[in-house]
Amino acid sequence: MNENNSLKEIGEQLLDAKRIALFPHIQMDGDAFGAASGLCRALRNSGREAVILLEDKIPDYLQFLDYGYCTMEQEQMEAPDVCICIDCGETKRFPKRAETFFHGKKTICVDHHASSQPFADYNYIDPGVAATAEIVYRLIKEMNLEVDRETGEALFTGICTDTGNFQYSNTTKESHLITADLYDAGIDHTKIAVELYQNISLNKIRITNRILDTLELFAGGRAAMVYVTQDMVQAENVSMEETEGSVDTVRNIRGVEIAVFIKERQPGLVKASMRAKTCGNVGEIAAAFGGGGHVKAAGCTLEMDIRQACETLKKAVEAHMQKIEGTAEGAQTGRAGGR
Amino acid sequence: MNENNSLKEIGEQLLDAKRIALFPHIQMDGDAFGAASGLCRALRNSGREAVILLEDKIPDYLQFLDYGYCTMEQEQMEAPDVCICIDCGETKRFPKRAETFFHGKKTICVDHHASSQPFADYNYIDPGVAATAEIVYRLIKEMNLEVDRETGEALFTGICTDTGNFQYSNTTKESHLITADLYDAGIDHTKIAVELYQNISLNKIRITNRILDTLELFAGGRAAMVYVTQDMVQAENVSMEETEGSVDTVRNIRGVEIAVFIKERQPGLVKASMRAKTCGNVGEIAAAFGGGGHVKAAGCTLEMDIRQACETLKKAVEAHMQKIEGTAEGAQTGRAGGR
Repeated sequence: MNENNSLKEIGEQLLDAKRIALFPHIQMDGDAFGAASGLCRALRNSGREAVILLEDKIPDYLQFLDYGYCTMEQEQMEAPDVCICIDCGETKRFPKRAETFFHGKKTICVDHHASSQPFADYNYIDPGVAATAEIVYRLIKEMNLEVDRETGEALFTGICTDTGNFQYSNTTKESHLITADLYDAGIDHTKIAVELYQNISLNKIRITNRILDTLELFAGGRAAMVYVTQDMVQAENVSMEETEGSVDTVRNIRGVEIAVFIKERQPGLVKASMRAKTCGNVGEIAAAFGGGGHVKAAGCTLEMDIRQACETLKKAVEAHMQKIEGTAEGAQTGRAGGR
Repeated sequence: MNENNSLKEIGEQLLDAKRIALFPHIQMDGDAFGAASGLCRALRNSGREAVILLEDKIPDYLQFLDYGYCTMEQEQMEAPDVCICIDCGETKRFPKRAETFFHGKKTICVDHHASSQPFADYNYIDPGVAATAEIVYRLIKEMNLEVDRETGEALFTGICTDTGNFQYSNTTKESHLITADLYDAGIDHTKIAVELYQNISLNKIRITNRILDTLELFAGGRAAMVYVTQDMVQAENVSMEETEGSVDTVRNIRGVEIAVFIKERQPGLVKASMRAKTCGNVGEIAAAFGGGGHVKAAGCTLEMDIRQACETLKKAVEAHMQKIEGTAEGAQTGRAGGR
């Protein structure tokens, strides 16, 4: 095991290989699948055997990146020369495939998560990079392989989903420079926008509406809360997963610094997702309830009735706002900063 | 009057000038104000006198780009050496300032609207460019003036609003390359995302919810319609302007190819906004009712009761869908194309 290897070293392992298996993380997002699809295609185009090994389904909105390289059959590729995990740096992110992964003659990890530790034979983990797709782009270039339109579209999907369309703080100059290069590969960025963002289920629109009907502002309009109950999701005939995203809408309200979204998992068990806008540290609030996450995005689980959970978290958020705003003067500064 | 001049020629006129007045269009969007603010700042930083002349207010969400250069006093700058209109290529886009504009010793127009015609002494109109802010960026570089952080943030705002965060079909490789350069100027892209997108009024959220409650799918789920009445906006205490954007949410529904949003301006007078996703030409539908616009975004005004307008447009959209889909097989192809 090494600390980070160079992309040159990693590229050499891939170029030396005939059979390569790729391992994106479970519950794939656009970056995991985009980076894996892009790399797999570039390797196949170069005459190598390459497959993407999965243990759960491809989300609907990413089906357009399924170029026919995926399999759930762990035995499909016998004794791969290289097993490479993509956008994940710990085996619990591909638990049912971990054993297969270590059957590779060589193992590689490429990732950009800060929590990842080198655990493969060759590792490239760079938390300063917005998307693993950017690392894969540079790796493909390092190997002098071709970035064709499909490869480009897969990598572009990774970059634009992980940067929130170049809005999130992780976006760098490099994200734009790589994207500019992908245009040369002939990507159809409009098609990808349609696939990713203009493909929302009707039920998701409806449940989001019901959730936003529960909107309550507190802490002088500096915090806001919405919730969803099991009754609500059943009435709209949706899964709890379809409610994702509501917390961002709440955070986007003018003046709101902390947004809380409470989901009733089952009677007596709720999950809270929290977002902070400019000031505030929701990671700190979540940690007080045994949860975790980042400064601007965090979550926790509470074993209590949903009404009780709403009141409990409201008090915790109010206390946090008071703490960070300090005096009345501090509150004023905070307010001005938000606008 | 000339056809397009070079940016070099236009830059020379600005460099020769001591007093410059800038004219963004009425009802400013992020590109009009961003391009004007960025150019004004670069000119001021170079020691020139420059003002942005306005005839209507700066929208709330763009106030952060008000660097103190704006005035409504048309007489503030006596006999400007250069008057330059930004992001507009016809005087009806700055009607109350048109006379003042032509008092400039020289007049310049920089714009990217396809409908614009050269009408100033010097013109640079390029419909192939995603945002006028991109033209202004190249103009500033041509003049060898500095792009400081504030200039960069103004230009970045123009690019990301006019490209829908690099999603719209007008986005080019150049949009990303210029943005990459703006990162070198030290822009805070996260701050701009907060200003532009995380600053939505509570009332806008509420009226949007009410509008989406009216959602109706038709044409076999391939088209959808929402509406808003005067009663609804009054009940939520919002202006009709706060309802903008609802038509995009409707277009984003899976399977929907044409979205229609009907606004009751007053009893017996409605305005319809329409969007097409991948197939369909809403410009054609709007034109049949005396309206206009583009293939993917268009609108028209109908002098009838809102219920009647809904029925009338529903029939028109159904007929259009039938026309473009032709046979049952055509419809199938269209469906596959959308997914």
